[in-house]
Amino acid sequence: MSMSMATSNHTLFLHNPTNLTNTTNLFPITTTRTATTTFKPISIKCTATTRTQAPPQASTQFQDRVFNFAAGPATLPENVLLKAQSELYNWRGSGMSVMEMSHRGKEFLSIIQKAESDLRTLLNIPSEYSVLFLQGGATTQFAAIPLNLCTPQDTVDYVVTGSWSDKAFKEAQKYCKPKVIWSGKSEKYTKIPSFSGLNQSTDARYLHICANETIHGVEFKDYPTPKNGVLVADMSSNFCSKPVDVSRFGLIYAGAQKNVGPSGVTIVIIRKDLIGNAQGLTPVMLDYKIHDENNSLYNTPPCYGIYMCGLVFEDLVEQGGLKEVEKKNKKKAEILYNAIDDSKGFFRCPVDKSVRSLMNVPFTLEKAELEVEFIKEAAKEKMVQLKGHRSVGGMRASIYNAMPLAGVEKLVAFMKDFQARHA
Amino acid sequence: MSMSMATSNHTLFLHNPTNLTNTTNLFPITTTRTATTTFKPISIKCTATTRTQAPPQASTQFQDRVFNFAAGPATLPENVLLKAQSELYNWRGSGMSVMEMSHRGKEFLSIIQKAESDLRTLLNIPSEYSVLFLQGGATTQFAAIPLNLCTPQDTVDYVVTGSWSDKAFKEAQKYCKPKVIWSGKSEKYTKIPSFSGLNQSTDARYLHICANETIHGVEFKDYPTPKNGVLVADMSSNFCSKPVDVSRFGLIYAGAQKNVGPSGVTIVIIRKDLIGNAQGLTPVMLDYKIHDENNSLYNTPPCYGIYMCGLVFEDLVEQGGLKEVEKKNKKKAEILYNAIDDSKGFFRCPVDKSVRSLMNVPFTLEKAELEVEFIKEAAKEKMVQLKGHRSVGGMRASIYNAMPLAGVEKLVAFMKDFQARHA
Repeated sequence: MSMSMATSNHTLFLHNPTNLTNTTNLFPITTTRTATTTFKPISIKCTATTRTQAPPQASTQFQDRVFNFAAGPATLPENVLLKAQSELYNWRGSGMSVMEMSHRGKEFLSIIQKAESDLRTLLNIPSEYSVLFLQGGATTQFAAIPLNLCTPQDTVDYVVTGSWSDKAFKEAQKYCKPKVIWSGKSEKYTKIPSFSGLNQSTDARYLHICANETIHGVEFKDYPTPKNGVLVADMSSNFCSKPVDVSRFGLIYAGAQKNVGPSGVTIVIIRKDLIGNAQGLTPVMLDYKIHDENNSLYNTPPCYGIYMCGLVFEDLVEQGGLKEVEKKNKKKAEILYNAIDDSKGFFRCPVDKSVRSLMNVPFTLEKAELEVEFIKEAAKEKMVQLKGHRSVGGMRASIYNAMPLAGVEKLVAFMKDFQARHA
Repeated sequence: MSMSMATSNHTLFLHNPTNLTNTTNLFPITTTRTATTTFKPISIKCTATTRTQAPPQASTQFQDRVFNFAAGPATLPENVLLKAQSELYNWRGSGMSVMEMSHRGKEFLSIIQKAESDLRTLLNIPSEYSVLFLQGGATTQFAAIPLNLCTPQDTVDYVVTGSWSDKAFKEAQKYCKPKVIWSGKSEKYTKIPSFSGLNQSTDARYLHICANETIHGVEFKDYPTPKNGVLVADMSSNFCSKPVDVSRFGLIYAGAQKNVGPSGVTIVIIRKDLIGNAQGLTPVMLDYKIHDENNSLYNTPPCYGIYMCGLVFEDLVEQGGLKEVEKKNKKKAEILYNAIDDSKGFFRCPVDKSVRSLMNVPFTLEKAELEVEFIKEAAKEKMVQLKGHRSVGGMRASIYNAMPLAGVEKLVAFMKDFQARHA
């Protein structure tokens, strides 16, 4: 297989100028001389090792990328993908892929330590907080949080602003006595409550919020102060999209697959004094103490995902940090929400303007029968994954850190054109 | 960053023949003309999208690979790595990386369905068994298995043949009444018990074994029949290394990071009638029913890891299936164990010959003071990760499916040379 693969890709790269010229729409590059240079293909001989040599498969590089508005897994920074591709087969002269490295070897230790260090820089994480790289997604944390922070008799408060905080609340019912102290369900999850009006329990061990509801597109712009206990936030879909004062939280958790990496990595930032009191029936893999004592290496972590998160963190630092990232995100969200609000009702966003998400923009069409057509035409224009979540319908544009401004500009231009043709 | 990266890599690829000539020791390929051809570098312009074009970073391709004897994460098939590299940036014209795909989109569904289908072909998995792609490693299954298969009052039997079956037993104590019906501890985990002598509980809900102990190098060559309940096996370190009669098991589980992929994916093969009886306190992410009903897509799975496993399964099918793979593994193990046994005691393997692992070969030196030197010299010869597990010391050569015969031949030649110099 590898031989034929090597040869075919090789041929594509060296002898198929159309791969290059096809793509000048997205990538205007002067490649004529390269494309027309007639190379001799490398003739490859396998050694007794049955190892093969293939040139990097360049053909894919020259194919169009789409603008991917998926809610997660989501678009990643193109330079991060290219760097990952360049290192996949042999990481920095180590002679192996990151996927092949012992998680206890010096190479991988340098990767996970750099990832944590860059994340601490980005969020200015105080030293009294631990950073854990775990598995299982935010859904696993829905159980781990009460198991680690409560006894079965403890009261905890949940603010339910959408599907995800509702799921977190339901899972907590197995392990403690959670109360829903506010729910936006009757208003179809389009609002964030006023903090002063929250009827917090005086004995709550923590107050849980979902900082950004991926499905409903509502985002906390500030954070409530717990009357008792600590603030716990699911930041899966707006993690590292803007600066956050970590010291206001007892625990922050986030699945990586929206803003900071591929799926399969969950990041937990927890104040150290909250670690060490897990309930007796807590699975060892859900016990923060085990992971904290072992620097997230108690068992084999999701090494490649952590490596990818590290490349993203490095890129965010190089962009100037989260203040700069937030500026870009505000700009992107502004032009998209303006396009919706200026459409004279042709496009509609149901979310309270003051709490609209910078990351996930749900919208509908006045003429609902046109929504299928809208999504179909957008896909033809290489703007994909614009369908709203099956539970709410309509459309949703997720515009995470890695969505370029040009992607949002292209979507807005398309929306205006679509309206002109269908108004 | 991406621009400078693109340029620098570009330069390496086009103007640095030393990248090629350096490596003829491991990869004899005729590259002279390519290396000496003088190309014009592609001049790159960024578009408003801030997207960049980089040629695939070929330089790494031409660097030596090491022979990686790590116990896991472990070496992967070179052709699989090259294919993954070729597709990383843009999967088969989809316009996105597999890491960016919605787990509910048709592209990823085709990936996970093909992975399951190829695995079912490899292991000839009967239709009454479900295949689940999960997260959290075998360590998470240590809790999930009793939580799903038992009530807290149920008795279950564990055969403890090494560190991993011991960990599985200890975790089960939280969720049921496990009994150790045999332990190899007093003999330093060098044996597998005779099945007739096993004192099985008449009311055990399952009999748990670790089919291959990664640290101690003992492997079940056949499997015991439970007196009551079903047979459950941790196959993390010999999964897909040989044919297995799945119908003899109620549940097989395996972390992917030894034989079939990167870390972060755990595969569970479970007889469907065993699904649906999880204890009330089972975290939703540890409930097999949830994952079975949702085809492993209840929440976002470790998509890229599943994709890599799929590439490995495809490669194993193309090799002719597990019968062929087993032949290769037996050949590799044979020459390595023979080298140890023929060394007149210079090298020693403590494991009972009849149950020596085909995957993990632990050995020591008669002159223990030479072990550090052995590992150091081997690393200089590009044979890495030969140090034994910290809990047992000595050396360990893990020779999984993806370790080429040439790697073992090189190790054996080195061992003989080392002995000649130090005997």
